[in-house]
Amino acid sequence: MRRLLLISNSTLHGSGYLEHCKDAIKDFLSDQVKTVLFIPYALHDRDNYASSARKAYTEMGYGLESIHEKPNAVDAVKQAEAIFIGGGNTFRLLKTLYDEKVIEIIRQRVLEEGVPYIGSSAGTNVATVSINTTNDMPIVFPPSFQALGLVSFNINPHYQDPDPNSKHMGETREQRITQFHEYEDAPPVLAIREGCILHVEGDKATLCGKNDARLFIRGKTPEEFQPGADMSFLLEWKKSS
Amino acid sequence: MRRLLLISNSTLHGSGYLEHCKDAIKDFLSDQVKTVLFIPYALHDRDNYASSARKAYTEMGYGLESIHEKPNAVDAVKQAEAIFIGGGNTFRLLKTLYDEKVIEIIRQRVLEEGVPYIGSSAGTNVATVSINTTNDMPIVFPPSFQALGLVSFNINPHYQDPDPNSKHMGETREQRITQFHEYEDAPPVLAIREGCILHVEGDKATLCGKNDARLFIRGKTPEEFQPGADMSFLLEWKKSS
Ligand SMILES: [Ca+2]
Ligand SMILES: [Ca+2]
Repeated sequence: MRRLLLISNSTLHGSGYLEHCKDAIKDFLSDQVKTVLFIPYALHDRDNYASSARKAYTEMGYGLESIHEKPNAVDAVKQAEAIFIGGGNTFRLLKTLYDEKVIEIIRQRVLEEGVPYIGSSAGTNVATVSINTTNDMPIVFPPSFQALGLVSFNINPHYQDPDPNSKHMGETREQRITQFHEYEDAPPVLAIREGCILHVEGDKATLCGKNDARLFIRGKTPEEFQPGADMSFLLEWKKSS
Repeated sequence: MRRLLLISNSTLHGSGYLEHCKDAIKDFLSDQVKTVLFIPYALHDRDNYASSARKAYTEMGYGLESIHEKPNAVDAVKQAEAIFIGGGNTFRLLKTLYDEKVIEIIRQRVLEEGVPYIGSSAGTNVATVSINTTNDMPIVFPPSFQALGLVSFNINPHYQDPDPNSKHMGETREQRITQFHEYEDAPPVLAIREGCILHVEGDKATLCGKNDARLFIRGKTPEEFQPGADMSFLLEWKKSS
């Protein structure tokens, strides 16, 4: 059974790394999991990143192995009890997942074998249909924007409401997502504000965490959802033909 | 002789479309140019976009033809007296430039035949080496991030300084550009704040407009430049081997 914990952001303003979501992670992994496989590909300095992640997971009572320390990335995924992909740059992350040839094996282990998947920020983006709705700068060219496809919609993490006092003339986040929906067949985009988490168990999806989400569906008025909301209907979304 | 006017943004807060840069555009085109070829590919509604652009150029005393109204895009570029590429989504713009097969002919007309090129926002991004330093959402997948290469460095338009009061945890613009420079051979990035313009005449580049620019070079401390600054040294930047 598919099990996902998709987190908007690792660090909430004023708290430590993964602190705002540590209860959600512990509930999600429970005592069934001993060791998490960490994928640090979204940042340049993988050693440093793995040591931050290891510290946070150790405090939660789990071991953590980083994929970049293992002799073979595909084998590491094959043996993983649980997978955590952290944030950073989404383009760098997705390109490296392709370069290391782990896209298919992650998808298979999560969707067919029920290996628990935790994503944060960029790690949440790559769990969806595509990275078309990342906020990151395209610092490197991946072979495709298609991602792991663990759900059939897209997510926009770190969602920000328009600032009515801003004098900046770049597009608001809502305008950006609306431009994505000018393309036919563009899937729904669940925009999760910082502190917000989407928890998926099989065919059931629930919003949790400390903040609300805003759902954009092509041709419809955006809709707000609060923590506790049942989002299972989103898992059934299929490309219209 | 290469002639470029690279504008950070079309609309400055509190003023109309192209209003903040209309004197710069008139000085740049002078009375040598009668009609500008407009490329509206960065936005979905091309008719509407062309009519806004036509209004602004008519007020400045120029005719405007939009490439999407012409029977053949390549022929339109071949006949252009001057080219203006407007803002919107940089990914959509670059993909369409590739789809319409006008990349090479624009490059040739500007670099070899001296056709004046005006870019704003996304139109400025595509004038540079690549779109790796756009701020836009990657709503569509172009065949490459390589762009027109009218200069040998990159630009980040709409540059924003970090907001010391922000509680948002997404990367600052400076962090994003610094991540781009984690890649070897990443060219310099001239970050132009809203209101800022880079004016290139052959091998001479000058900052102008109403705001400052910040220059990022891999491995160096970022540096500030004011309107009037001579930026010609940037045109000489070559990939280190
Ligand atoms: Ca990021
Ligand atoms: Ca834009």
